[in-house]
Parts: sequence; structure tokens; C-alpha cells
Amino acid sequence: MDLQEYLKSVENLVDKSLFRYFGDAPGQLDKASAHLLLAGGKRLRPAMVMLAAEAVKKRSSDRIFPAALALELTHTFTLVHDDIMDNDSFRRGVPTVHTVWDEATAILAGDVLYARAFELICKAEAEPAAMVRAISMLARACEEICQGQSEDMAFENQDEVTRGEYLDMVRKKTGALYAAAAGIGAILGGGTPQQAEALHNLGMTTGIAFQIQDDLIDLLTPRGSSGKDRASDLRAGKKTLIAIVAEEKGIDLAPYKRNLTDDEIDSIINDLENAGVINEVRQIALDLVYNAKAGLSVISESEEKQLIIEMVDFFVTRRF
Amino acid sequence: MDLQEYLKSVENLVDKSLFRYFGDAPGQLDKASAHLLLAGGKRLRPAMVMLAAEAVKKRSSDRIFPAALALELTHTFTLVHDDIMDNDSFRRGVPTVHTVWDEATAILAGDVLYARAFELICKAEAEPAAMVRAISMLARACEEICQGQSEDMAFENQDEVTRGEYLDMVRKKTGALYAAAAGIGAILGGGTPQQAEALHNLGMTTGIAFQIQDDLIDLLTPRGSSGKDRASDLRAGKKTLIAIVAEEKGIDLAPYKRNLTDDEIDSIINDLENAGVINEVRQIALDLVYNAKAGLSVISESEEKQLIIEMVDFFVTRRF
Repeated sequence: MDLQEYLKSVENLVDKSLFRYFGDAPGQLDKASAHLLLAGGKRLRPAMVMLAAEAVKKRSSDRIFPAALALELTHTFTLVHDDIMDNDSFRRGVPTVHTVWDEATAILAGDVLYARAFELICKAEAEPAAMVRAISMLARACEEICQGQSEDMAFENQDEVTRGEYLDMVRKKTGALYAAAAGIGAILGGGTPQQAEALHNLGMTTGIAFQIQDDLIDLLTPRGSSGKDRASDLRAGKKTLIAIVAEEKGIDLAPYKRNLTDDEIDSIINDLENAGVINEVRQIALDLVYNAKAGLSVISESEEKQLIIEMVDFFVTRRF
Repeated sequence: MDLQEYLKSVENLVDKSLFRYFGDAPGQLDKASAHLLLAGGKRLRPAMVMLAAEAVKKRSSDRIFPAALALELTHTFTLVHDDIMDNDSFRRGVPTVHTVWDEATAILAGDVLYARAFELICKAEAEPAAMVRAISMLARACEEICQGQSEDMAFENQDEVTRGEYLDMVRKKTGALYAAAAGIGAILGGGTPQQAEALHNLGMTTGIAFQIQDDLIDLLTPRGSSGKDRASDLRAGKKTLIAIVAEEKGIDLAPYKRNLTDDEIDSIINDLENAGVINEVRQIALDLVYNAKAGLSVISESEEKQLIIEMVDFFVTRRF
């Protein structure tokens, strides 16, 4: 099976399960909780859970599928809350939860998804002691995501953000959940502590690369494809790696913290490409993925290990 | 040991532990997360966890103390988020988190406490299979609390709320977490499924009574003692059991949904007392506790069982 086939099969399975659990929601809060979850998505974190479990090959990954769903719910809860804080109005091609309902409902909808993530991970079938380690890892990731989001917001009021500060923020905001996905898959799949650590590290490092690619997509991809507002980071004056590298090369993106026409955005992209900013940022993400793959030596060769390698390559080659 | 001595000992232990974990917070998000947690509180949910574990008498309750802390963190996370939604500015005698910082920080501070609650419960020492059941019960309670808060807010735009609707909302909003506290204590303490169920039920029913008493306190207790804005429910036009029973007796509290002087509040209380509203509401809470205690026959007599009985009596006799 090639990567895209594998990802499609997980996506279908996740979509079907989520629709079964959330599709027939009776009350407004249930509908609000299901809204973004049922709006699609690449379901990459569940795929990472499943592949990590299969790569350590101790038990069928079907039995731990609820943990894969738990990771998707966790991801979605953070998006629902982040959208309130960042005042974003579109996500996955649909209006955000606080836009359709209100802020109070969006806070609660996120909290419901948060709860259900932990309910779901408890439904995985694995050794109870492994379950507790996996649950603890998920909780730890949730805390790190919050710290990352907090640092991300603080950057907006900070004159200068260094590459190191940016990468540390992204490690928490995005890396932590990919790390948990891979680590939880390995733990529940019956992997050794060394294997779980290697996969956790891989998820962390490639998760950082994933976010860098997301920042590139936010800038470079037309709204129709990404489902988000185009160049929202630029218009919000976000200190992304793109902005940091641009500043190092003498291009100040701060004046573009305002509404921008498509022509203006195109012109800025052109300047950044000519100055080598886009290529340099892309190379940082590629290097992270390259180094992460080198850490997988404790996992025996298998089709699933190969798919993990292809997936993390995909993290930094995808265009949406 | 009498109840107040026992509660004081748990309170001291909880305060000391929370101060150790949260007292030296470096960043603003950590400080915001610790703010309400370190502002004191009766720590009744941790006491319920510990007493339930001791009442089923299978292992020392010290080993499950992290689960007791987890219940306090869960409670506090819901307060931080509720305060945003309800726009309350004081709690436990201090300004609320979104008042001191901002809404975004308060959303994240609640989310951090939520994560740490699950991190903490994973640190309890008990049979791993029991741990997973306990964690699942906590997650289920979190979801119910959100549903309850959602219904509570919806009541404000609802012309009529029945006693049944009110009690069902409170069962979720307050009962669910006391149920989880008692149930988790029993499960981690090594109790039988019957004992865990009996204690879970007791927590649920007396939790409802606890909230009814809270509504009475909100109305009747001067601000200095409760640490909250006085008569905040009345001024917010909340459909509490007091308002519902008042309406049944021909007293409409809706016109008092506005700023009120202390004299006006005193006069309303006088009217409600003369019409028998306060006594009737109080009696409903007393009956709930009376019935809950009758369900404890599956727990052998012990000093700890006696303390549980005294604690749930205290739920409906306390004045703050």
C-alpha cells in the first residue's frame, strides 16, 4: 500500500467513526462540538498513532483505534479554542465554532472534545499499565500545547523573536501532539521503551517541520485549497519562521499587519522568494525531517516503518 | 477525628501540595493557572476522594492522593472557564482569572488545569486496570459538567424552567464531579463495583444538594464570607431552584435582573422567607441528602463512613 492509499484508508475509517459518534448530535453543544470534527481534515495524527503501533508489531492496531480517534479529538479541541483566541473565522473550509455559535459555546465545545479524547483513549484495548502511560503522555501533550499557544500569542507583543524561541514554541504547540501520537501508538502497540522514545522524538521533530510547512501553506496557498483565510499569519503580524528569516534578510513584514489584497500578498511572496526566504525556511523543515528519520534505527524495517518515513516526508512536501 | 478536623487536615495537605506544584510558577500562563487554585477553597472534592477510598479500606489512601488533587484541579478548571462565560469578576475572594489577565489567558489557564488533572490522576498508585476505570470516570464527569453549564446558560433565554430541568442541569454541572470524586476514591481504593456504584450515586445526589445550598448561599450570605459577588444569580436573572419555587408561589424574580442595593436584596430575601420559598428549597436539599445516605448500606460501618455521612450533611448545613 502506498502512503496516500494508507492515509486515505485511515481518513475514511476516522470519518466514519466520528460520524457514527458525533453525526447525530441532539443538542446545540453536541452540534458545536461535532462541527469542526466533521468538517474533514487530513487525520494525520490518527494515522501516526496507527502506523507507530503497527511498526512496533506486537498487537493488532485495530484494538487501539479509539486512541487514534482521541488524538484527532485533542487536535480539534485545541483548534476550537485557538480560533477564539486568534479570532479566526474560517477553518477546514467552514466558519469557526465561535462564529457559528458564540464564544461561550466554543469554549464548552472545546472542553467537551477534550473530555471525549480522554474517554476515547480509555477505550483502547492494551495492557492497563501501558494505557496509563499513554494517557499520561496525552495529558502532558495537552499542557505543552497550551504553553505553546500562550508563547505564540505573547510573540505578537514582543519586538524580536529569535529562531530558537520560535522553534521552541512550535515544538510545544505542534510537535508535542505528533510526539504523543507516535509515542502513544508505540506504547499501546506493545513497543519497548526505546522504541516508544524513538517514535516520540520523531513525532516531536517532524511536528515542528509540519508547522513550518503549515506557515508556508498559510502564505502560499490560495484560500480555496487550505480552507483557511489566506495569509492570515501575515495579516495578523505573526512572528512565524518566515517573518524571522525575512527580518534577518532585511525584509520587515510588520507593516503588512492589516487587510491585504490578493495582489499585495502576491507581491510580498515574490519579494520573499527573490530574497531566498522561502527556500531557507523550507530547507529548515527538510533538515528537521531528515534528522528525525535517522533516529528510527531501533525500529526494524517493515512496510509500516517505510510508511512512517513517507508520511514525515509528506509533512514537508504537501501543498495544503 | 471529627469532620471539621478531617476536612482541615485534607485542606492543609491539598494547599501544601498545590503550593509546592504551582506556587513557584515562572511564566504568566502558569501564574494564571495557579491563581484561583491557590486562592483557597474548601477542598471538599479531594476530601470525598480520600474518604471514599478509606471507607472501602483496601489500601492506604495516601497512595491515591494525586487523584484527590486531580479532582480539585478539574473543579478549578471548570470555574475558570465558567467565570469567563458568566462574566463573574470575583471568586474565592480574588478577582477572576480573565479579569486579572484576559479571556485568552483564562481559556488557556483552564485548559492547563484540565491537562494537569489528568496528569495527576495518572500518578496515583493503584491497580492499572482500576486506574483506567477511574480516569474514564473523570473524563465522563468533565463532559457532563460542560453539558450542565451549557444547559444552565440556555435557561437564561428560556421563559420557563421546570424543577426537573433544573435538577437535571445541576446533576450534570455539580453532581457529576462529586459522583466522580466518590466513585474514583472507591475504585482506586480497591472497592467492589457495588461499593463504587453506591459511592458514585451518593456523590451525584448530594452534589445536587450541594449546588442548591450554593444557590442559597449566593443569595443569603454577605459578600465578605462567600468571596463571590452577593446575589449574583438574582442580578443575572438565573433560573435557580429558588427562582423556580418562588415563581410557583407567585413571586416573579425576573424584574430583579439588574444592579441591586443591599437594602433591595434584604427586602427580596424577606419576601422569599415569608412566602416559605427558602424553607422549601432547603427541604429539597435535605431530602436529597437523606435519601443518598440510605444507599450506603453496601459499605461497612467505619469511622470513615461516618465522616462521609457527616460531610454530606455539612453540604446542606454550611453557610459559606
